[in-house]
Amino acid sequence: MEITLEQAAEQLRGGNHITILCHRKPDGDTTGSALALYDALTELGKKVRIRCSDPLPELFQFLEENYREPEEFEEDFVVAVDVASVPLLGDLQEEYGEKVDLCIDHHSSNSRYARQLYLDGGAAAAAELIYRLFKAMEVPLTVHPALCIYTGLATDTGCFCFSNTTPASLRIAAEVLELGAPVADANRRLFESKKPSRVALEAQVLGSLEYYYEGHCAVMLISQELKKRFGVNDDELEGLSSIPRKIEGVWVGVTIREQEDCCRISLRTTPEADACAICAAFGGGGHIRAAGCTIEGGPDRARELLLREIGRQAFPGKQPEMDE
Amino acid sequence: MEITLEQAAEQLRGGNHITILCHRKPDGDTTGSALALYDALTELGKKVRIRCSDPLPELFQFLEENYREPEEFEEDFVVAVDVASVPLLGDLQEEYGEKVDLCIDHHSSNSRYARQLYLDGGAAAAAELIYRLFKAMEVPLTVHPALCIYTGLATDTGCFCFSNTTPASLRIAAEVLELGAPVADANRRLFESKKPSRVALEAQVLGSLEYYYEGHCAVMLISQELKKRFGVNDDELEGLSSIPRKIEGVWVGVTIREQEDCCRISLRTTPEADACAICAAFGGGGHIRAAGCTIEGGPDRARELLLREIGRQAFPGKQPEMDE
Repeated sequence: MEITLEQAAEQLRGGNHITILCHRKPDGDTTGSALALYDALTELGKKVRIRCSDPLPELFQFLEENYREPEEFEEDFVVAVDVASVPLLGDLQEEYGEKVDLCIDHHSSNSRYARQLYLDGGAAAAAELIYRLFKAMEVPLTVHPALCIYTGLATDTGCFCFSNTTPASLRIAAEVLELGAPVADANRRLFESKKPSRVALEAQVLGSLEYYYEGHCAVMLISQELKKRFGVNDDELEGLSSIPRKIEGVWVGVTIREQEDCCRISLRTTPEADACAICAAFGGGGHIRAAGCTIEGGPDRARELLLREIGRQAFPGKQPEMDE
Repeated sequence: MEITLEQAAEQLRGGNHITILCHRKPDGDTTGSALALYDALTELGKKVRIRCSDPLPELFQFLEENYREPEEFEEDFVVAVDVASVPLLGDLQEEYGEKVDLCIDHHSSNSRYARQLYLDGGAAAAAELIYRLFKAMEVPLTVHPALCIYTGLATDTGCFCFSNTTPASLRIAAEVLELGAPVADANRRLFESKKPSRVALEAQVLGSLEYYYEGHCAVMLISQELKKRFGVNDDELEGLSSIPRKIEGVWVGVTIREQEDCCRISLRTTPEADACAICAAFGGGGHIRAAGCTIEGGPDRARELLLREIGRQAFPGKQPEMDE
């Protein structure tokens, strides 16, 4: 059932031993939101722990320096942040799928799996809702949680460049700067520190971009071979998937990241196409302009299936001839 | 002489036929500031024209659709926006070098050439000062000038990602969004529309990045040959120069753009080095983290001279061995 900000704050005040759940393959928003909420609830005297099915990427480890696992913890409340559906809990879905008391989310596609849901599909990031909770729970915003909230906002909005950027998210960022949080350092870490190996890989994949549907669809393939050759892991490929959509005339930008036995697909679209609907055809989801899915098998199969579905939805009656 | 916001507003109110000057090779800030100021002064009943030594890059032409050259114009006031020194007037320096009544600028390095100067070195962009002038002159901010101001702020701050981003610039962006200005469309044009040819060129230059001083200095060369091969002109290379500095461990990012008989140099630095001081050694200038200069001759000479000066200032006692 959907609840208001005040009700969500009330729910959290009621808990004493609170588990915060992040989504699998944690990004800046689920991580920043969880760590900021950890600070707020700890400030209120709660025992709090954060759980995620996957390890925290190196990129975000600078945010967790003051996180401590509590001893003798008797969980009495479970809150999920930025987790739109049970499968996104990854290996934790067995244990927590039915046990989430409150979900705080900004995905309109939220599957409403939690007992209670505080949802704002218009928010730029879940971190925007965490900021509101600080105000509603009357916890003063200090530098550390402010930086965590900033990280959620900045990573989900491409540093306030994507179309999901809200006036509220910009004003929160202004407040975070005024608090004296090391935003410049965070931006360098988040957006401006690519390993030389990652840059070399980027040069390779950019050089091998493929264009289809009269240049309205661009496909970027990141093969296992390339990742091995440059010693780059998937964590370090953050952000690469936004590249194809940034090319003039491209409505659908596809990034195929080859895994051992499947391909991870990221889609980015302009208003001309619905990324979420296309990925839904493969059991994936996300937002209308940015979504993802997983397709079994190798990159050739994934490319073929994707191009067919993209054509069906975005370019009816057209053939995906490759442009030379 | 330096004057206050109110005095600058008073000065502008006093003019009737006002010429606005932009700096050579106009960027988003000088362009957006000039066009927003044009709107404000026109709203106040003035005759206004904008002059620049170089044509407006295609990238910014979407901002000037409502600009009209006035007929019978008898110039009685000259204001320069975002022009830090007379040479930056390009071909207009002969005509206007001594004739600038008011300069509105955010470069601390401003040479104080104008009769009066409204300067705030702490502002993210000149556009931030133009925003203040709207308030001071009591001109209501409407969608078009708001978008021009946004363009100045967003381009000078790397869409609010660079360390010069101010709380004020973020709040102005929030106000611009609330006014209903087509910010998402502007961001797509400004930051997310690279021609496929530009992307192919980017792949080439990324692949040929050179690292010096134990990886703390990265040099990117954009040769005439590459520009010709991919049919890309200098306008379309906007933003490329921020790439080398974004590489992990790089303190000094150098971009060398080969011209007919000289090289255009862009420097981006982390707090460990002063881009402005390094470029000043070659008669250039700019900001402490982002500066530029021109060096006569070919790229090899430019690279050698730059590496020597960079070493002298940022890596004393070290040799610029190239890292393989």
